Amino acid sequence: MSVDPKFKRIALIGLGLIGGSLGHAIKRGKLADVVVGYASSEATRKRAKELGFVDEVTASVVDAARDADLIVLCVPVGAIAKVCAEIEPALKVGATVTDVGSVKNAVVRDGGPFIPDGVHFIPGHPIAGTEQSGPDAGFAELFDGRWCILTPVPGADRAAVAKLAAFWEACGSKVDFMEPKHHDLVLAITSHLPHLIAYNIVGTADDMETVTQAEVIKYSAGGFRDFTRLAASDPTMWRDVCLNNKDAILEMLGRFSEDLSALQRSIRWGDGDALFELFTRTRAVRRSIIDAGQDNPAPNFGRDPAHKPQ
Amino acid sequence: MSVDPKFKRIALIGLGLIGGSLGHAIKRGKLADVVVGYASSEATRKRAKELGFVDEVTASVVDAARDADLIVLCVPVGAIAKVCAEIEPALKVGATVTDVGSVKNAVVRDGGPFIPDGVHFIPGHPIAGTEQSGPDAGFAELFDGRWCILTPVPGADRAAVAKLAAFWEACGSKVDFMEPKHHDLVLAITSHLPHLIAYNIVGTADDMETVTQAEVIKYSAGGFRDFTRLAASDPTMWRDVCLNNKDAILEMLGRFSEDLSALQRSIRWGDGDALFELFTRTRAVRRSIIDAGQDNPAPNFGRDPAHKPQ
Repeated sequence: MSVDPKFKRIALIGLGLIGGSLGHAIKRGKLADVVVGYASSEATRKRAKELGFVDEVTASVVDAARDADLIVLCVPVGAIAKVCAEIEPALKVGATVTDVGSVKNAVVRDGGPFIPDGVHFIPGHPIAGTEQSGPDAGFAELFDGRWCILTPVPGADRAAVAKLAAFWEACGSKVDFMEPKHHDLVLAITSHLPHLIAYNIVGTADDMETVTQAEVIKYSAGGFRDFTRLAASDPTMWRDVCLNNKDAILEMLGRFSEDLSALQRSIRWGDGDALFELFTRTRAVRRSIIDAGQDNPAPNFGRDPAHKPQ
Repeated sequence: MSVDPKFKRIALIGLGLIGGSLGHAIKRGKLADVVVGYASSEATRKRAKELGFVDEVTASVVDAARDADLIVLCVPVGAIAKVCAEIEPALKVGATVTDVGSVKNAVVRDGGPFIPDGVHFIPGHPIAGTEQSGPDAGFAELFDGRWCILTPVPGADRAAVAKLAAFWEACGSKVDFMEPKHHDLVLAITSHLPHLIAYNIVGTADDMETVTQAEVIKYSAGGFRDFTRLAASDPTMWRDVCLNNKDAILEMLGRFSEDLSALQRSIRWGDGDALFELFTRTRAVRRSIIDAGQDNPAPNFGRDPAHKPQ
């Protein structure tokens, strides 16, 4: 039996890249009678209304949550506790509260205590994004073909979980379920470490004395430019990810540094065979990602005019 | 007075991504009467002929170089000495020998001694490429808008240097001049370190026990996929780069690791301000690269169907 993915009233708490994209996807799929949006900034609320991905806006997070059937928290992970404390009195029985944060154990820990009995708390994480922020960055297709991981807590209502999964599928996603702790470990290697490495190398290049900043910019097509995309991501969001997934991130950083020391040693001692072995092994991983439909097969991500994606 | 960018007979030694792209760019710009191509593999020679980016092919590097006015070495840096030794007897007076390698000091060191008096040796490096290899990977637009760095040795013939620069401009490049050693330092940070970091993180992710390979692939859109592109680059080429730019690469790896340790410490001690400062500072670098025309301004490099480049 198929599950109805629609909600009467959806509240989007936060109207940036993810909140905005979700609003557009809801409109595209006609997945709500009314979408109400909350943002702390008046300019953001005004712009969201203009762009039409919300029907109503409000400067009060409590008003946004009141009477909503689905409340989606699209705020940095560090704001979850505060927002959940604020909306607690307004949540109606039978409503579902979810989020879109890159860490899940901290969301369960920080948000869970504020969710009243009879309200379904089902944390989630769409693995999709761009390096841009704000209401203008959102677009309906962001979630198409990407995975959304739901991490329902033990005892979560099965019907509510199925409905939220159907909602994400109607937004274009494929849905998986995971334990919050395992989610945080998986994302530490597939997302958090890559962002940190990108931020770090861009920082290193920014600090050179022997090579000018202008040279780094001019000759960035040799590889460096690829890292600058992730390193342009939202600073508040990423600070909160680091502060809230510390153990898994430190574990992955430790492994990365260990491997980097071995690579450095191979270079120092001119061990061409070890270098060749690593550089060959890593090629297959990209092939698998392309076969799984998770990246554009065109050279250079299809970024160059000569190789537009089909 | 404008300089004639055309050569009568151009020899491309190596018919992979760069040799192939150069052949296509030469054909596009009508920059040679005859393009002769050498490749060690018969299949590559046959395919290059079919694709039409060379007029003739030969299984002899000596035959390719004989009577050529411009000889472009499009081989891994580790093969430069051998190729130069082979072509030495065939080089005609007044000819120009150049290359496309990612390191320049080693090319001067390894190739220079074999270049006879009266032949112009002007090493070069187009900062352009994709993660793909082989004759089918080449395309005429690869060099459009990208920089090509020439590193003429002291006493190089000014007319020959000007002609080679005009040739690269006619292939779509912008041309700069640099000392070989400075080139190697600049490329160590803008290209070599990024590739090594990408190879390393993909290797680290490939070696996990707690997260499966399938999970890494499925959820790669969280950031990891960006690194797999560089980590799919040609292993032989990159082995040779590492072996031939050791000092500059070790210097950059040292700086990177030092910065990474500081970042790791900020995460361990929960220093949100330090994290926020780094994550904010790096944003400006991407803006500069886009303003300089060195990357696609569309979100996600324009890789997603919803955001096709203009």
